[in-house]
Amino acid sequence: MKFKIEQKDLYEGIQKVQKAVANKQTMPILTGIFLEAKKDKGLHLIATDLELGIEHYINANIEKEGSIVIPANSFTQLVRELPNEKIDFNADLEQYQITLSCSSSEFKLKGFNPEEYPQLPEINVPEKFKLPINELKRIINEVEFSTSNDETQPALTGSLFSSKEDKIIIVSTNTYRLAFSKMEKSISLKSKEELNIILPSKTLKELTRLLEGEEVEIFVDSNYIKFIFEDITIISRLIEGKFPNYKQVMPNKFNTKLFVDRKLLQNAVKRASLIAKMDSNVLNLKTENNKLIIDSANSEQGHAHEEISIDKNGPDQKITIDAGYLLDVLKVIDDEEISIELIGPLNPLTLKKGNKDNYIYLIMPVRSD
Amino acid sequence: MKFKIEQKDLYEGIQKVQKAVANKQTMPILTGIFLEAKKDKGLHLIATDLELGIEHYINANIEKEGSIVIPANSFTQLVRELPNEKIDFNADLEQYQITLSCSSSEFKLKGFNPEEYPQLPEINVPEKFKLPINELKRIINEVEFSTSNDETQPALTGSLFSSKEDKIIIVSTNTYRLAFSKMEKSISLKSKEELNIILPSKTLKELTRLLEGEEVEIFVDSNYIKFIFEDITIISRLIEGKFPNYKQVMPNKFNTKLFVDRKLLQNAVKRASLIAKMDSNVLNLKTENNKLIIDSANSEQGHAHEEISIDKNGPDQKITIDAGYLLDVLKVIDDEEISIELIGPLNPLTLKKGNKDNYIYLIMPVRSD
Repeated sequence: MKFKIEQKDLYEGIQKVQKAVANKQTMPILTGIFLEAKKDKGLHLIATDLELGIEHYINANIEKEGSIVIPANSFTQLVRELPNEKIDFNADLEQYQITLSCSSSEFKLKGFNPEEYPQLPEINVPEKFKLPINELKRIINEVEFSTSNDETQPALTGSLFSSKEDKIIIVSTNTYRLAFSKMEKSISLKSKEELNIILPSKTLKELTRLLEGEEVEIFVDSNYIKFIFEDITIISRLIEGKFPNYKQVMPNKFNTKLFVDRKLLQNAVKRASLIAKMDSNVLNLKTENNKLIIDSANSEQGHAHEEISIDKNGPDQKITIDAGYLLDVLKVIDDEEISIELIGPLNPLTLKKGNKDNYIYLIMPVRSD
Repeated sequence: MKFKIEQKDLYEGIQKVQKAVANKQTMPILTGIFLEAKKDKGLHLIATDLELGIEHYINANIEKEGSIVIPANSFTQLVRELPNEKIDFNADLEQYQITLSCSSSEFKLKGFNPEEYPQLPEINVPEKFKLPINELKRIINEVEFSTSNDETQPALTGSLFSSKEDKIIIVSTNTYRLAFSKMEKSISLKSKEELNIILPSKTLKELTRLLEGEEVEIFVDSNYIKFIFEDITIISRLIEGKFPNYKQVMPNKFNTKLFVDRKLLQNAVKRASLIAKMDSNVLNLKTENNKLIIDSANSEQGHAHEEISIDKNGPDQKITIDAGYLLDVLKVIDDEEISIELIGPLNPLTLKKGNKDNYIYLIMPVRSD
């Protein structure tokens, strides 16, 4: 196995697959990156932790074909430090040892037997659909942060990815807050069946990091989903289990609706949180005519009081919520104006992007005395 | 206690004293910042952990004098998040509570009784000397990183600060490496006695962070040292004990001297270290005519080999040293060319800034087989 490659190309390629490398040492070979040199295809990189797999092709001048697995950490650090020049890559496929030469540097690294590297799962479904990448990135970003960390409820550690009529929607919840986002563009799924799958949070994070280009091709079977775009393939296991019925908790009416400048609200909540987090991290929100008043819950150590002007329709309201849940969404949304719908102190608060209906964020109230 | 102050001024002022705030909760009041408002002097900030104290004066529009101690963490975070406008500061000196108002935000924070805050030590010596700040920063930077972390040898956890004839020198060592730096400019110490004190590493770090302006005034007694510059006073306890006789270990001859480009050497050592640190973090250096050859010590997992061109006088040499000790100094020195003096494989390596003599860095060899 022998090829020449630009340091920059190799380093960028490694970075693309790196997040799928296993952290744990339960199967040492999974802490490596699989490299395959093929004359007609260039250099093929694969990393997987058996939940998520990432494949990537890069240009390389292949002199001798072959494959090997190289420890990801030392390989990445080494390639990063090499000068931005051509690297001579040579592998001894009997000793599983590679030699990198670049300018007046030479490195040897011990690798693994590539035959022991697990194959990425095949998805044998003829049907696929395509989604616009910008929209997909947006809806993932807007909900991914609301997944749960509670491993005892696996379905909540991922996001529901579903076709609703001809639109793709994505939903996350930890039962105390819920985020729902819908694609603007219609898609045509050939099959009549509704798509209803749960994607792991790590897969969604990697998608938003890596997705680039115009469109992504998606293949789904009962256990796996595959995304293909540019020179990258991402394959992920689906989370088994039933996602909660999110439609049930979405309010279908409200008593009061207010419009507020997102940046002003974000800064006020950020400051009030500094005091709130000394205690239970809870904020009291109330409206008084055209003002939204935010107070940190009472604490021995301090108190915060903020006033923001709003446009309001409906009677004055008050509600007590977790400060972090409100801060999270204000960081992710970049609209200038947001709207908040309120029913009463025991009902959820609904946050939307101004007058748009493609995004809904619910925060359940905290019972206060 | 009541004053008006610009958010920016207050935030910058807090940042200047903050590093002297105690981390540990053994004396809760030391986790706070002492504030004193005086009509003729403005706002006076003090922080101390009893080892290091920092005082700073900032402009403020004082309406009512008084003093209070405020928890440093929440105060800093709060002031950072406030808008860049005038802050109204009000303290209730019976409840030890402050109220900050700024635009439409209002915050209350619980403080401490200022009478319980310890006074910074007085240094009652009439004699002082002045040092140029640029030079002082340089010599501290060049040696501070070489102090020891070993608390059982307190003298080595600081740096020797000493007057040698009419020059100030500073020395750090952990016994495996040693850094020595000398000021270019002569100073006149009025007293005939040689100055020989040991400054804690934390004090030196804060000095390089805070020192600004032309000159710093220095006062020393047998337990403390005080630095005064611009609106800042730094007072630090001295480390008791005897600093090792560094002159004894400095070689007074060499057999081989070589000149090498610092950046080339740094990059080569950085790469070789990636492999060396998989094992004992040791590098083998050898010269071969006009080449310096660096190899990582043999390891199961990999090998690094680097070649750099040098100018050399004297016979070829080889030596085995710790990679980290060589990397550390190459990060701190910014001269284009450095020189290395060698005696033999069992003698220290001496690194200098080209042909200059105001800096000496020694690395003891590692015995290899």
